[in-house]
Amino acid sequence: MLDVLIVPNRLTRRFNDLTHEEVTDMFTQGQRVCKALESHYKADAFTMAIQDGPEAGQTVPHVHLHIIPRHKGDYKNNDDIYGDLEDSKPRSVIDNESRPPRSAREMAEEALAMRKLFGQWDTSE
Amino acid sequence: MLDVLIVPNRLTRRFNDLTHEEVTDMFTQGQRVCKALESHYKADAFTMAIQDGPEAGQTVPHVHLHIIPRHKGDYKNNDDIYGDLEDSKPRSVIDNESRPPRSAREMAEEALAMRKLFGQWDTSE
Repeated sequence: MLDVLIVPNRLTRRFNDLTHEEVTDMFTQGQRVCKALESHYKADAFTMAIQDGPEAGQTVPHVHLHIIPRHKGDYKNNDDIYGDLEDSKPRSVIDNESRPPRSAREMAEEALAMRKLFGQWDTSE
Repeated sequence: MLDVLIVPNRLTRRFNDLTHEEVTDMFTQGQRVCKALESHYKADAFTMAIQDGPEAGQTVPHVHLHIIPRHKGDYKNNDDIYGDLEDSKPRSVIDNESRPPRSAREMAEEALAMRKLFGQWDTSE
């Protein structure tokens, strides 16, 4: 499973700690990420989620938006995808024995391809 | 399960159909909704999700943000909550035989209490 995280630069624990500017930025960047994922991975749809607080499954105390590109039939039960949001659990779709983790080189190439799609972002960051 | 939906006035199917203003508005209102839910329901955390497209579980073709107030121990398995996002399925926590649906009057009273918390919103809308 590919899961893009959008994370504010400033360390903020909860959604309501974000300033107006940070909220706006997080979700307008979210739209750009969706466009790039649609183009690069031919995504049909997106699962977007914030686990805002430990009682909602948040494991990393820095607010982040998950954007997961979806394809028809990728999960037998649609909601099984949410189990894969948690960092502490093994991923059920991509990271199984028949599909080993990608190499560092593959990941670097993928990141480069995405960066080009995002275009205006400063690649030196 | 209480599930607040934030829906743009304009009928738009997908997240990327939202204008910059609509995206900003959806999530800044989301922050206000979280504050009100925290105050009124003593929520510890929030599950926030958009099912953006049918392949992500979207059943109503009008983009909407789910905000679900969470409490410690409300679901045995945290991710079971996502099964309750879909309108077509029976809710597992609130709407079961031991807890019948609220009456129209109860819902009206609840809506009124929430409206007061939102304060600045025009209650005539």
